Amino acid sequence: MNEKITKRDEDFALWYTDIIKAADLIDYSSVKGSMIIRPYGYAIWENMVSVLDKMFKDTGHVNVQMPMFIPESLFNIEKEHVEGFAPEVALVTHGGSEKLEEPYIVRPTSEVLFCEHYKKIINSYRDLPLLYNQWCTIVRWEKTTRPFLRSREILWQEGHTMHSSEKEAREETLRMLKIYETFQKEYLATPVLTGLKTNKEKFAGAEETYTIEAMMYDGIALQNGTSHYFGQGFSKAFDIKFLNKENKQEYPYQTSWGVTTRMIGGLIMVHSDDLGLVLPPKIAPIKLVIIPIGDSKEVLDLANDLKVKLDEKNITNYIDNTDKSPGFKFAEAEVKGYPLRIEIGPRDLKEDCVTIVRRDTLEKIKVKKEDIIPEVEKLLISVQDNLYNSALKRRDEMIYEAYTLEEFENLVNKPGFILTSWCGEETCEENVREKYNLKSRCIPLNDKESNKPCTICKREGKYKLYYGKQY
Amino acid sequence: MNEKITKRDEDFALWYTDIIKAADLIDYSSVKGSMIIRPYGYAIWENMVSVLDKMFKDTGHVNVQMPMFIPESLFNIEKEHVEGFAPEVALVTHGGSEKLEEPYIVRPTSEVLFCEHYKKIINSYRDLPLLYNQWCTIVRWEKTTRPFLRSREILWQEGHTMHSSEKEAREETLRMLKIYETFQKEYLATPVLTGLKTNKEKFAGAEETYTIEAMMYDGIALQNGTSHYFGQGFSKAFDIKFLNKENKQEYPYQTSWGVTTRMIGGLIMVHSDDLGLVLPPKIAPIKLVIIPIGDSKEVLDLANDLKVKLDEKNITNYIDNTDKSPGFKFAEAEVKGYPLRIEIGPRDLKEDCVTIVRRDTLEKIKVKKEDIIPEVEKLLISVQDNLYNSALKRRDEMIYEAYTLEEFENLVNKPGFILTSWCGEETCEENVREKYNLKSRCIPLNDKESNKPCTICKREGKYKLYYGKQY
Repeated sequence: MNEKITKRDEDFALWYTDIIKAADLIDYSSVKGSMIIRPYGYAIWENMVSVLDKMFKDTGHVNVQMPMFIPESLFNIEKEHVEGFAPEVALVTHGGSEKLEEPYIVRPTSEVLFCEHYKKIINSYRDLPLLYNQWCTIVRWEKTTRPFLRSREILWQEGHTMHSSEKEAREETLRMLKIYETFQKEYLATPVLTGLKTNKEKFAGAEETYTIEAMMYDGIALQNGTSHYFGQGFSKAFDIKFLNKENKQEYPYQTSWGVTTRMIGGLIMVHSDDLGLVLPPKIAPIKLVIIPIGDSKEVLDLANDLKVKLDEKNITNYIDNTDKSPGFKFAEAEVKGYPLRIEIGPRDLKEDCVTIVRRDTLEKIKVKKEDIIPEVEKLLISVQDNLYNSALKRRDEMIYEAYTLEEFENLVNKPGFILTSWCGEETCEENVREKYNLKSRCIPLNDKESNKPCTICKREGKYKLYYGKQY
Repeated sequence: MNEKITKRDEDFALWYTDIIKAADLIDYSSVKGSMIIRPYGYAIWENMVSVLDKMFKDTGHVNVQMPMFIPESLFNIEKEHVEGFAPEVALVTHGGSEKLEEPYIVRPTSEVLFCEHYKKIINSYRDLPLLYNQWCTIVRWEKTTRPFLRSREILWQEGHTMHSSEKEAREETLRMLKIYETFQKEYLATPVLTGLKTNKEKFAGAEETYTIEAMMYDGIALQNGTSHYFGQGFSKAFDIKFLNKENKQEYPYQTSWGVTTRMIGGLIMVHSDDLGLVLPPKIAPIKLVIIPIGDSKEVLDLANDLKVKLDEKNITNYIDNTDKSPGFKFAEAEVKGYPLRIEIGPRDLKEDCVTIVRRDTLEKIKVKKEDIIPEVEKLLISVQDNLYNSALKRRDEMIYEAYTLEEFENLVNKPGFILTSWCGEETCEENVREKYNLKSRCIPLNDKESNKPCTICKREGKYKLYYGKQY
């Protein structure tokens, strides 16, 4: 709590790690590239898991648990997949003091494990769809790491589903993308672009990769979740077949989709400020802190009384009755990003009032004692809405359009996204990356086609395409 | 579902794996010694996690997430600990195509990771207690494995707490043991012995290990949870110190405690029978299945109406409206261990009745339509109680006492536990293991002292001690 937080507009990267440290979200260990997620950080993840898990189950998905290791030969079955992941895997070579006959890969993702299992349990169209999800840890041996954003160990969920028709699998791919979008909007107060990744940027082994792309405060993109349509690629590689309704053998159609602890990084970089963390009420582990000023009986009685009433309403809260000064407690509440704090002081009490402070706007609101609970309920909704609307406004102001190379070149150094027209050729995308250090974000989901010439090469445009820098 | 289940009294080991397979709890993969936990098996684990996590949080514990790897040098800091675990660790030697400077151990347990972190965050008595828990997967390279009972990968929780006094840490050790005991009794309908492990059987690095010992149907023990008091052993090895209230540097006092997916194995071996799984209602993912007989409108309407009412009461249920025969559906409900099934047939309906069948006793109960929901609620409690009482009765009938070597030798081949008097010397315990292949289970928690001579060597007895075979 005593750590100084670098100003956000001065050094965004340093500000980010300062916030994470000051709010006690993580710690480092002697395990390079991994992080310890501390109780307050983990409580945010638990809230994310709890909401998403319910959304998955409400749409018919069930959880399973696969092994964390993958024998090398199993991993090598799907070619594109191997090529994509081989450079960043961790290898177990010894177990129980003996060298293993075959090295095991610590799972970087579990498609092949699911496929091996599916081959055994899928026989008929009656066995489909299989709507499986797994909450687990994966390992990708990244060279440079940043807390939550890029880590060697990642907490995530990976959905893996199998369907009897292409249509159904494609619907599933988009259904889960929509769930991610809704979750980001409703809970994380974060607007996202939804769209299709280009072939160059898609997942290793997928036919199509859909993405949700959030824009951070500094205008840089965070790919915050993906949903893949695999077609029959893995089914064929693993020889998974089912007897369809026409009594013929057919390869099933597959999807996978995932989100990770990276969402916590996004949450910080979208909403937080120079004073510390700012958390949307719907995902905040603690919705408010009650800070008694002085220790008169009247003040403490009201604090205790409020706590009981808030508990009854399931509004998570606590009374800060440590011996720190009120000013210190206010600052701490701001660092931790509690959406509201209630200050109970003798002066306010003379007027039968308390002061509620919003974390998002820092506005102080004097509230009559009898109105506190309804006011808290109203304010929690208001903070949630305001965070979303502010993020949306800021993002939209940083989305630009460029339909000529000149327009494009005038925008490449501005923070934000650039919407372009694209001929569909990888060479144009590659040129943009090499020359301007921008990567394609996505082809917008419900507004794919372009009737303008390609922004880069002037040939006929086929798709709309967003560009932007990325984390 | 079509798998034949071996008779329990014919071949218990085969019966156990048959049940697991028939009820779709797990599958095997090409990862030797690991298992795939299938949706129905994982749903049992999710229920266990949900109940225990609430019990932990209600007693002030918070969750964290540590790395899954441990650098070898960090693991080597506490000597007894290393010696206990070294023979069964898995080693990561390569990451990102390069050989690691130092091998990483895939965590077999996380004491050292917690201690490294504690050293950084503990300074004053104000920082204590730290009541941390972690839900994760650990790896122990076992030579022979059995689903749920002994696996190379284990899903578990590990609590790790730090305290400013020995008294408080000892209380925590027993508090968590008590929580495990309560969970086993109230939810898993499983009576357990609680007690202290002998020095020979305690956890590597602990001062004291407490255990809950359940007895399986075949009289063999399953150690189903442990709680360790570490004293200052790790604190000193890791040089963790805090400024106490007297302003002096002191080493904090530590505990750890854990339960694993092994509890699912215990659940099966305590309650299940020749027809399949039997699950206590409080932990069963599905409390009942509604089986319509025939497809008359009246039957289906009642089924749908019941489903709505059961859903409202949060009694998880589903209607089996597949095209299988009623007999097949009944058998399937038995294999899956749903605590109740409701059969709705035209004949019963003529009398305005349905038939409810209890899974534990297979008793069929004719119930008037208007009484179904209250009867279901009553029966769920009754099944839960009956399972506990049956298990308790069976266990108590298989606990024997032996206070002379002759009595002891007459009992060593009987299934069950033998309560003895013990001089406290490891040689006697070792003799029993070598000569009779029995291991000490525990010294009973609230009834430690013995005033009889040692059952084995006739010297003065100090403690009561249970012996038994173990999984």
